[in-house]
Amino acid sequence: MTSPHTQHVDSGHLRGVFSPVVTPFKADLSPDAERLVRHCRWLLSNDVGLAVFGTNSEANSMSVDEKIELLDFLIDTGIDPFRMMPGTGCSALTDSVRLTAHATNLGVTGVLMLPPFYYKGVSDEGLYRNFAEVIERVGDSRLQIYLYNIPPVSQVSISVALIERLVKHYPDVVVGIKDSSGDWSVTESYLEVFASIGSVFPGSESFLLQGLRNGAAGCISATANVNPAAISNLFATWQNEDADAQQTRLNEIRGIFARYPMIPALKAAIANYTKDSSWQRVRPPLVELSSEQERSLINELESAGYNFSQPYQ
Amino acid sequence: MTSPHTQHVDSGHLRGVFSPVVTPFKADLSPDAERLVRHCRWLLSNDVGLAVFGTNSEANSMSVDEKIELLDFLIDTGIDPFRMMPGTGCSALTDSVRLTAHATNLGVTGVLMLPPFYYKGVSDEGLYRNFAEVIERVGDSRLQIYLYNIPPVSQVSISVALIERLVKHYPDVVVGIKDSSGDWSVTESYLEVFASIGSVFPGSESFLLQGLRNGAAGCISATANVNPAAISNLFATWQNEDADAQQTRLNEIRGIFARYPMIPALKAAIANYTKDSSWQRVRPPLVELSSEQERSLINELESAGYNFSQPYQ
Repeated sequence: MTSPHTQHVDSGHLRGVFSPVVTPFKADLSPDAERLVRHCRWLLSNDVGLAVFGTNSEANSMSVDEKIELLDFLIDTGIDPFRMMPGTGCSALTDSVRLTAHATNLGVTGVLMLPPFYYKGVSDEGLYRNFAEVIERVGDSRLQIYLYNIPPVSQVSISVALIERLVKHYPDVVVGIKDSSGDWSVTESYLEVFASIGSVFPGSESFLLQGLRNGAAGCISATANVNPAAISNLFATWQNEDADAQQTRLNEIRGIFARYPMIPALKAAIANYTKDSSWQRVRPPLVELSSEQERSLINELESAGYNFSQPYQ
Repeated sequence: MTSPHTQHVDSGHLRGVFSPVVTPFKADLSPDAERLVRHCRWLLSNDVGLAVFGTNSEANSMSVDEKIELLDFLIDTGIDPFRMMPGTGCSALTDSVRLTAHATNLGVTGVLMLPPFYYKGVSDEGLYRNFAEVIERVGDSRLQIYLYNIPPVSQVSISVALIERLVKHYPDVVVGIKDSSGDWSVTESYLEVFASIGSVFPGSESFLLQGLRNGAAGCISATANVNPAAISNLFATWQNEDADAQQTRLNEIRGIFARYPMIPALKAAIANYTKDSSWQRVRPPLVELSSEQERSLINELESAGYNFSQPYQ
């Protein structure tokens, strides 16, 4: 990876555009490691890093064993672990420990960690204990954690007070956050607490330019699965004169996807542009787009002049 | 189990009082199988069946491997699988299949099945596919599923339309539901759809008498962990003259527990009355009661004349 756009670490801070990589499934709904590798290579060739096992990866619809097998396959196939930030936060403490330890031992650049998400209304003390237990039990000096705030889905928020406590006790481990709250004021509060000590990634490219102008490290975005080149180009050229125009264009494409159920829409687009219908499959409880929805999505994208850019090699 | 109070099957319908059995943990937070067996035996001796791995069991804070090991231990120790209704619904399809198949193969009377709970706002079609996949993949004619509706925690509701579709396609498998919505009108709608074809268990003894008078099969309640004899007595004698007085008394005790975080409060009471402080432990993200909360809980219980009844053997 020698492109100037590529993910890099700046005075200790990880920067770049990452995609929560969608997970292809075979007809029996088992993970399709070969297709996943192809998609990962395509994202990397577009300067997008690999936040595998995110919300858009249907990570919590897979067992820990399935995720470990996929991770091993990706690394064995030659995907650079430094370009990977796998999601490893599970509902069960012991699952989070096992998956985090495995990923860290493979040399990934960091892990993206959900809080435990079954119980609601839990205290900061309980969340602190969860993250502290994971860190202590993994016990690996290479561990770098990016917290994952996505209250619209997890229904469990990560407060600034919790981050401050974690950063105080584990300054070399808790090094950033992904914010998928969709609320810029929350992202701002994270930028303040992580200023000069960590990396804040908005969870959508809608906030990429505003983020970069305010100290964000890039973004981790669902639609980077389908629009990687344009998003990473804005990351690389955000100080150019056309940055606002680029942002407007990114918003237009994201806006189309956002009118459909996001994960099935991402997969429908990939299926359509790669002419590989197996990409449409999702695991329950998700449902693939209807053929009508799919036609409508593709029509909207074509009317907007959307270009799936570099096809798969 | 020869007590007349005991769980029984009436014209194909399972009836009785069940407890989502709290899970004791050792100092290293691993499940404490020996203490769990003692608690299960005490519940059974009070005519309460074992809904192990419920919400109050911190089931989703344990890995599938940990749950399988506990189940095997319980059965190997001689706990009657017919008195067990383990929770086996996980976030990941493959986890639900594995745990459900294992439990069914051990001969449990039924399983209590959460819908997948990570994604929110999912469709009935997606939930139908989840349950149908589990049923088809387990492929065991002994499988009996009690659906588990607990929207305050899972944030995913089970609709009457979904139940009707499941019951139509799997009449011998989908045989009931536990309703922890806390909303009697929801319980009523389930009583209607399961009338003469299945068992509806309100998720609290607060609805035990009202439920039994309207065709419910009993209840599955957190506080059956600490007040089993009184709850199972109302189940056995609900047609007696003192039934309303019994219900009022049950509500009084439950009301005390409900003023505290429920799971830590249940464990604090067991720790106190068995003089075994290790019972206080919870897994993150939960936090045990403070000593002040614990004193206050025990004082309230004593003022109310609460009696932990039969001590452990």
